[in-house]
Amino acid sequence: MRTYLDCIPCFFKQALEASRISGASRITQKKVLDELAKILPKFSLNTPPPLMGRVIYKLVSKLTKNLDPYREIKIKSNELALNIYPKLKRKVALSKDRLKKAIELAIAANSIDYGVRNSLNIEEELKRILREEEKTIKVENKRFFEYEEFKKALNKAKTILYLGDNAGEVVFDRVLIEEIKKIDKNKKIIYAVKSKPIINDALVEDALQAGIHKVAEIILSGVDAPGTVLSLCSKEFLKVYKNADLIISKGQGNFEALSDKKRPIFYLFMAKCKTVANHLGCKLRDIILFHNLNNKVLK
Amino acid sequence: MRTYLDCIPCFFKQALEASRISGASRITQKKVLDELAKILPKFSLNTPPPLMGRVIYKLVSKLTKNLDPYREIKIKSNELALNIYPKLKRKVALSKDRLKKAIELAIAANSIDYGVRNSLNIEEELKRILREEEKTIKVENKRFFEYEEFKKALNKAKTILYLGDNAGEVVFDRVLIEEIKKIDKNKKIIYAVKSKPIINDALVEDALQAGIHKVAEIILSGVDAPGTVLSLCSKEFLKVYKNADLIISKGQGNFEALSDKKRPIFYLFMAKCKTVANHLGCKLRDIILFHNLNNKVLK
Repeated sequence: MRTYLDCIPCFFKQALEASRISGASRITQKKVLDELAKILPKFSLNTPPPLMGRVIYKLVSKLTKNLDPYREIKIKSNELALNIYPKLKRKVALSKDRLKKAIELAIAANSIDYGVRNSLNIEEELKRILREEEKTIKVENKRFFEYEEFKKALNKAKTILYLGDNAGEVVFDRVLIEEIKKIDKNKKIIYAVKSKPIINDALVEDALQAGIHKVAEIILSGVDAPGTVLSLCSKEFLKVYKNADLIISKGQGNFEALSDKKRPIFYLFMAKCKTVANHLGCKLRDIILFHNLNNKVLK
Repeated sequence: MRTYLDCIPCFFKQALEASRISGASRITQKKVLDELAKILPKFSLNTPPPLMGRVIYKLVSKLTKNLDPYREIKIKSNELALNIYPKLKRKVALSKDRLKKAIELAIAANSIDYGVRNSLNIEEELKRILREEEKTIKVENKRFFEYEEFKKALNKAKTILYLGDNAGEVVFDRVLIEEIKKIDKNKKIIYAVKSKPIINDALVEDALQAGIHKVAEIILSGVDAPGTVLSLCSKEFLKVYKNADLIISKGQGNFEALSDKKRPIFYLFMAKCKTVANHLGCKLRDIILFHNLNNKVLK
């Protein structure tokens, strides 16, 4: 997905909020915005938004000298999500369609995103997810919830590349992977995380904290952007990407980075900003399970 | 009020929306944002936000060659507000406290502001005002609704300077001025409008369309910013400003421009953005009738 003009005010908002989370003084916050302003005229709108996200958070890190401002938030998010792991397992076990329930929970957990909302209260958000996902199922937009197609692709696939998104959410990904393994324990699942800190995106330590290593192989994508932009990926990762039978792309950032790619990708995410919702033609906060090759809507 | 860092993302949003209203191409829209980015590092946060508002809309006018993009919107807003003028008069006539009702309606109409929301549907907004103002009265924040103090100041004042804000809203201002005149027809009321087009702020033609000339003297402030920034005002206006017994400052932009001034000013506006609401310590969309000299909260 290209960068829309509407992304530009949001870039400044993200830069400001990330500076604050990093503990920057008001003067440093202004400096971050000024530096971003200097970069903006040179930035091409033909690149996906996560590339600018990368520039912004690098700028914040440089000026605040804080390399991983979301570290504590990520640890806490994983902890809180792990606390409700037994509840998630029970919800899945009690549902009529275990896989579907695990998918819905995993997508609902995509709301744990500090790129979109910095005032997020993870504990409240998790409670909300547990409370509301029943409702979510009912309101899901059929046009953007290609469950049957996904099941078919899943059944055929031997090697699955799962692109993780945020810390905390990674526990929900584990629950979904466990359901996939239940269908066929011989499926090979490779879970990709970002290589360097970027917002609250899951790193290898978050995947380990969530116990992903118990159910999948963990790989570093090589990326330090809030979306798996292929030009930033390592050779090792690209090999896996090219050879996987199915790619589960989690989160809005990964969708933005990969929406025009010709691989067998299913995008699982929540449409968290108006620009992405307009791009797709869905509503804000719609639950998306979407296959790139079936749909003409993807640009 | 100084410019907050949170105003900066909003400046980009306003620039983008004004470019679109001006019919700019995507390329010109990007150019406007790039030019704004170049200006930003030189802009002092110690000045009130309407000064940047002025820069933004001048930039849009220059690059789109559209000197008054909101012209049609303003005419339509006045027309629609004039259509409900008899309803407004009836509401005032049927109320227990005529002056209070006229004030509440005039403040509610401050929501007709294209600086804050560009997707405004004036017709819907007017219907909403008529429907909801009953509710508004009940939820009004006593701390920010100094009606008794206002009445006292009004009774004593012989010469009143009324700083207008937006087109459409100007019809509601007329209703309020008519109520003030009803208290004492000898009060001299001078209604100030902006001198050059700026967003949907009322110009002399809007005041005339609304019939302000029938109830007050109209004066041009000399200002081409979305708020009466004194350094931009004409000498003639400043004389009136210095000599008035009471100044009724309408709208958020005028509040931002004049909040720290030592004249007897009552600010009548709706807190339309989070930054202003946080600055005051009120809630978003609170109805404000506020005297500058009584309150320590004003910085």
